Amino acid sequence: MNNMHGGDIYSYQNITDFSTNINPLGIPKAVKDAVIDSLAICNQYPDVRHLSLRKSLSEKDNIDIPNIICGNGAADLIFSLCLALKPKKALLLAPTFSEYEQALHAVDCSIIYYKLLEENQFELQTNFLDNLTNDLDIVFLCNPNNPTGHVIKVPFLNEILSLCEKKNIFLVIDECFNDFLDNPSVYTIKDCVSKHSHLFVLKAFTKLYAIPGLRLGYGYCSNTKLLDRMHQVSQPWSVSIPALAAGVAALKEDEYVTRTRALIREEREYLTRELPQYGLSLFESKANYIFFKGPSNFYENMLSEGYLIRDCSNYPGLSKGYYRIAVKSHPENVQLLEKVRKLWRNQ
Amino acid sequence: MNNMHGGDIYSYQNITDFSTNINPLGIPKAVKDAVIDSLAICNQYPDVRHLSLRKSLSEKDNIDIPNIICGNGAADLIFSLCLALKPKKALLLAPTFSEYEQALHAVDCSIIYYKLLEENQFELQTNFLDNLTNDLDIVFLCNPNNPTGHVIKVPFLNEILSLCEKKNIFLVIDECFNDFLDNPSVYTIKDCVSKHSHLFVLKAFTKLYAIPGLRLGYGYCSNTKLLDRMHQVSQPWSVSIPALAAGVAALKEDEYVTRTRALIREEREYLTRELPQYGLSLFESKANYIFFKGPSNFYENMLSEGYLIRDCSNYPGLSKGYYRIAVKSHPENVQLLEKVRKLWRNQ
Repeated sequence: MNNMHGGDIYSYQNITDFSTNINPLGIPKAVKDAVIDSLAICNQYPDVRHLSLRKSLSEKDNIDIPNIICGNGAADLIFSLCLALKPKKALLLAPTFSEYEQALHAVDCSIIYYKLLEENQFELQTNFLDNLTNDLDIVFLCNPNNPTGHVIKVPFLNEILSLCEKKNIFLVIDECFNDFLDNPSVYTIKDCVSKHSHLFVLKAFTKLYAIPGLRLGYGYCSNTKLLDRMHQVSQPWSVSIPALAAGVAALKEDEYVTRTRALIREEREYLTRELPQYGLSLFESKANYIFFKGPSNFYENMLSEGYLIRDCSNYPGLSKGYYRIAVKSHPENVQLLEKVRKLWRNQ
Repeated sequence: MNNMHGGDIYSYQNITDFSTNINPLGIPKAVKDAVIDSLAICNQYPDVRHLSLRKSLSEKDNIDIPNIICGNGAADLIFSLCLALKPKKALLLAPTFSEYEQALHAVDCSIIYYKLLEENQFELQTNFLDNLTNDLDIVFLCNPNNPTGHVIKVPFLNEILSLCEKKNIFLVIDECFNDFLDNPSVYTIKDCVSKHSHLFVLKAFTKLYAIPGLRLGYGYCSNTKLLDRMHQVSQPWSVSIPALAAGVAALKEDEYVTRTRALIREEREYLTRELPQYGLSLFESKANYIFFKGPSNFYENMLSEGYLIRDCSNYPGLSKGYYRIAVKSHPENVQLLEKVRKLWRNQ
């Protein structure tokens, strides 16, 4: 089995990982403490209803508890959603996060792609609406998109949502990186969940609270029959007790989130100013990662310098020469830039 | 969503749980320590290849590393196995662990049942072989069986294995409770894995090391194409970093396992002597749980005494009046017996 994603630090020694888009502030202390405390009850099965976490999410986002589902990372929910819906035909962006495709393949769904074009800066165009045809069962959008960092604003999202409703297409909006944006509310459609039963908004604790190792994702959807079906097609205990405890603790970390947002903005701007000086062509990103074009051997050269970045050549719609890096802490970004500068000079 | 399993302590307050079959010795200290230490790297994604844990399992059980798969609890592997094989027709015991049925339903597999009969003490009979017909794609056996505690010895397992091979039936043997038996080696078929590609042996850390809250299961199978397919139909990061760390630490706990086995034997014999005095009819169990028949309101009455036991009426093949309790520590078992005695006197 190969790891087709970033984050495969296990194949290397002494590697600095810029390939995964994890909060550089690290795991909040209160979250670590909650995990340690939860060990006292890890000899019990987890609550299959995830009530404590769903209550906390409900209070934070003003979503009714029955409309909230938790999973073993957002990826778990992508798979159980596909298994519950068993769609026959799906529309995906290219490039986008590859787990949608993986999960759709698992249920033998045919996939068509809306190709994001470099000449449009990989931005979603209004002609996307023309691609929402009656024969589609499901559409996945990632907002901000991974790996490009491009965002879709609420008015356009609403147009897509209305057309999907009219054409009976189930719409999944992956907002896993929304909280890193400067103004998350301008780009989230979660407030529409209660009124649109064909909408599923996917979110994760993974990136924002720096806990990819713990596995915790969630989704908002007012189609409770679908959520029931998702539970039926997967095991009851998918979310661990440490993950549930971490989630409840994380949702109290408002100050941490504010600090994160400020740090990401500042460092994204810093990297955006610096990187183009060294032969790299950046596409505009509003997220906590930066997508760019560079020399065809840039991934390998960075690796030989001890830096793991995301080689995006295995994304549908991309090829060799496209890369993504995370926005990390200032000292880490400075060190990264030193390596980039060194490679550029040695060209 | 309802919890159809035991262990739903979250619906009650101040309840003593005898409904789940978890090691009464609790989580080994070294396992807890390993989880706490692992928090330092939980800001990374888990190793999708689970190499450290698969190496430890390989050394312990003498199984080749490529023939080992890890999952988010054994239940996770049951689902991904069904999704990878997509069987059309399955044979299950009745009663047995309900997740096989759940997972088969998720892939629209039709199910026939081999009914374990009370007149045979719910033991598997040799006529089971007659039920292994050519039209079957998959058979699940649970050994020791849950909830009955009945075991199948290796010679009969080998007969089943041979016939399944001849008839092209995939055979899953769930050995999640094998390690609690007095003589595990008399009942395990794991040594046959390397030579039989249609065999999958399922195991878990959950029960033996008392970590149901952490979620960790594994499987042995020499059909590496099938294991690859299982990875393709599920997310890459299903096993958390704390679970992987717990597993590696747990496999060093030989003395704990020896103590567990002695405790379970002694306490199972104690409960087996005591319980029949109070109007309960026990079926012979070699596992860390005891299956019995009792008054139709026994579950509710025990609940009103603050004791949660497993009401087995929702198992296919059973009805109201069948129960399962865990074998726990001596003080806990003594207290349970006090309640049982009290109910019997008040009848």
